[in-house]
Amino acid sequence: MALAQDRAREEFLTAVGPDGLIDDPVELRSYECDGLTGYRVTPALVLLPRTTEQVAAAVRVCARHRIPFVARGAGTGLSGGALPVAEGVVISVQRLRAVLEVDPVHRRARVQPGVTNLDITRTVSEHGLYFAPDPSSQQVCTIGGNVAENSGGAHCLKYGFTVNHVLAAEVVLPDGTVTTLGGDSAHQGGYDLLGAFIGSEGTLGIVTEITVKLLPRPAVVRTVVADFPSVEQSCRTVSAIVARGIVPAAVEMMDTLAIEAVEVAVAAGYTRGAAAALIVELDGPEGEVATQFDQVLGLCREHGTTKLRVAETDEERTAIWKGRKAAFAAMGRISPNYFVQDGVVPRTRLAEALTRIAELADAAGLRVANVFHAGDGNLHPLVLYNESAGEHDRAEELSSAIAELCVDLGGSLSGEHGIGTDKVCSMVRQFTADDLATMALLRQAYDPQNICNPGKLLPTPRLCGEQPGPHKPHPAETAGLAERW
Amino acid sequence: MALAQDRAREEFLTAVGPDGLIDDPVELRSYECDGLTGYRVTPALVLLPRTTEQVAAAVRVCARHRIPFVARGAGTGLSGGALPVAEGVVISVQRLRAVLEVDPVHRRARVQPGVTNLDITRTVSEHGLYFAPDPSSQQVCTIGGNVAENSGGAHCLKYGFTVNHVLAAEVVLPDGTVTTLGGDSAHQGGYDLLGAFIGSEGTLGIVTEITVKLLPRPAVVRTVVADFPSVEQSCRTVSAIVARGIVPAAVEMMDTLAIEAVEVAVAAGYTRGAAAALIVELDGPEGEVATQFDQVLGLCREHGTTKLRVAETDEERTAIWKGRKAAFAAMGRISPNYFVQDGVVPRTRLAEALTRIAELADAAGLRVANVFHAGDGNLHPLVLYNESAGEHDRAEELSSAIAELCVDLGGSLSGEHGIGTDKVCSMVRQFTADDLATMALLRQAYDPQNICNPGKLLPTPRLCGEQPGPHKPHPAETAGLAERW
Repeated sequence: MALAQDRAREEFLTAVGPDGLIDDPVELRSYECDGLTGYRVTPALVLLPRTTEQVAAAVRVCARHRIPFVARGAGTGLSGGALPVAEGVVISVQRLRAVLEVDPVHRRARVQPGVTNLDITRTVSEHGLYFAPDPSSQQVCTIGGNVAENSGGAHCLKYGFTVNHVLAAEVVLPDGTVTTLGGDSAHQGGYDLLGAFIGSEGTLGIVTEITVKLLPRPAVVRTVVADFPSVEQSCRTVSAIVARGIVPAAVEMMDTLAIEAVEVAVAAGYTRGAAAALIVELDGPEGEVATQFDQVLGLCREHGTTKLRVAETDEERTAIWKGRKAAFAAMGRISPNYFVQDGVVPRTRLAEALTRIAELADAAGLRVANVFHAGDGNLHPLVLYNESAGEHDRAEELSSAIAELCVDLGGSLSGEHGIGTDKVCSMVRQFTADDLATMALLRQAYDPQNICNPGKLLPTPRLCGEQPGPHKPHPAETAGLAERW
Repeated sequence: MALAQDRAREEFLTAVGPDGLIDDPVELRSYECDGLTGYRVTPALVLLPRTTEQVAAAVRVCARHRIPFVARGAGTGLSGGALPVAEGVVISVQRLRAVLEVDPVHRRARVQPGVTNLDITRTVSEHGLYFAPDPSSQQVCTIGGNVAENSGGAHCLKYGFTVNHVLAAEVVLPDGTVTTLGGDSAHQGGYDLLGAFIGSEGTLGIVTEITVKLLPRPAVVRTVVADFPSVEQSCRTVSAIVARGIVPAAVEMMDTLAIEAVEVAVAAGYTRGAAAALIVELDGPEGEVATQFDQVLGLCREHGTTKLRVAETDEERTAIWKGRKAAFAAMGRISPNYFVQDGVVPRTRLAEALTRIAELADAAGLRVANVFHAGDGNLHPLVLYNESAGEHDRAEELSSAIAELCVDLGGSLSGEHGIGTDKVCSMVRQFTADDLATMALLRQAYDPQNICNPGKLLPTPRLCGEQPGPHKPHPAETAGLAERW
């Protein structure tokens, strides 16, 4: 057991200093899971470096002794991407929380990975700028975690994901090398390794510095909540808005059950009992927003809305979003336990997907609440269950069935939460053996020792069992690659 | 010499059939260069496969015999990315030119790599859709080449590059494996290998099928050409438009010399003698475009435009674009030879960059014409020279100095033409040894035999000599990697 050796521990102490190492068993428990609390593993050590050089030194110790390591931001991830490895170390970026530079002229900021998503916007707001990706956890989640998971949020329909807002990243590779991916201008020569790194779920290295793009605050923002008598009508409205050539800043949908939970929890003013509530937000220059907002209201009416509630003040808009962003947490008010899925379907198949999810839920005898990014087809079905009533396994099966339904409808397993530990064995539903072997080539090139967040993202026979179906051997496998991951 | 062996030739014949193999010395000459005509190498063989399976079979022959191969679309690239390797084969995708599927509901099309950029739009226009990236060579360049180079075009300011319009790609890897990167919905799990592949300049494999996104034709398009008494005033106008929160579909700039060449060649109606002409195009819903177009005209007036020419008909708009897109070819009318550069600078440093370029040109005693994508800071300085007057070397030096100036101003070597053969030795100006070694890790993972477009993209001591400056050895180098590329 490598960590039992005084030598590795001594080297970690040299790398991060005595106050940067946690090995007290009680303290270690704080790091045993992320937001996917159903999986828990206690790590051997937690390291809290204060500089890029300390991160690199810690990773070099791991590489020398072949000790697995897992990077961790705020631990708010929902797919178990930051689940520790037993006998391994967790490298937390919580102490790397400086905003290093704000450049309002070029509209960019250089920050350390432990800075929270919302703190970037708070720091630059005096210049009329903001950072666009806005996951619901933005008050606590870190930009480092956002880079690892390629996080989205309600406004990614118009503005894109984290990958669309990062110009450059300094990263520590699994051998301890420090390198920079991307650069200050939008177009770089060479491979787009920055694009491959963002969303790699901590398997290609640890990000230690991020240059983000900033956007000017839009001149005007208009928000409406439209109630509908059926989920299907709300879905058709979404398609109609997009077909009209309008790209809203956000289009979010909540069904009866989600509305109920939100109202019990935060009383955000949604109509209890409505079959579906659609939140549509437009932003941009005044002339554009005014014209298009009228069109949106008209399309809602054409599709049978029963109530239009337009936010007349910033406070009203804030209340609408507070309700939406609290939806996951609010589930505790109507169910003891829940699983959340994150599948994507083509937008034109939203109504079909929701009908099938309802059928699956009925068959399983469980409730499913839906709250999701309708504009880009990213579902977040919440499978409600009662652990103490023995419903756990049934709920887990239903949850997996929903994820695989999304793949069958031409979509994918995850829109923004990541594969992590949670969906690793479902990857074979979406990708062929050749596809997965091609991903493994990249992983092995960066991490030949398999020490960088092992067991996440790519399925292995050890984790998932042998998979059925035709399997054409890839050269990588003859090199022992498939066995390693 | 591998190709002299009857065995390899025999296997290529089996792979592509007798009419799919060219070895006639005269015919081979057609393939000796791409649009960067200063570099010429005659390949040993040219293959013309008709199917994905034939491409894969040809690549497997290369892999078995360790024969270098270079993929080629229409050969319009400007950085020598399709320059053949002596003793190697060129694999042309010209016969893979079917549009396999058009799906107007999901707004996507599945095409083979030999389809021209403009033919995609022609095929889908009956549905009111189009393919957004529009390189000036769009009438002849292939979508396969666009994927290899991550091509842009005049409208990439608003709509992005090829990478933003490709959902999935079937590719043949350098060992002959056929795999699919990406998928039908926007978000996939796993690494974004599609993003890393697009723009990899033919060094990671050959694309054999592409699923592109299609956009609905905008309701309204408005175009204006604004003349300015100085280049600097036109640059300040660009910054003012963007600062107002307007994202034009295109913002293009031409200086006196470029206007002169265009007018001599195609008489597009630009004002001869104007210091600078700015083309600004807006598109979108009617209300938005009307409001913003008035703002653009106002900003041009505020910044001292001497003439505003608004296109009142589609024909007038077509003429404006015909002039702009013919600019490179038109240089032949005012100069026997030219080099074109493709550097990017931060938009706020455009005026400074152009002043410095003029100073460099004066010092070298050569003329430089400027025609470029002003909106995203992507310069296309055309260094004019007379080969027979012995100006070649001086022009080449000036051209390189301009590219490196862009890097020094915080930009990059290439916006859309690629690194290829042309700028491979300048890569060390932009990237550190660690950055380049990190790119080499990916390349070696996919192409351990170094047979897939070798000598392009990444510098090597053999191509570029030993580089000065501190060089921290990377583990990859101890594995002999640096020597190979």
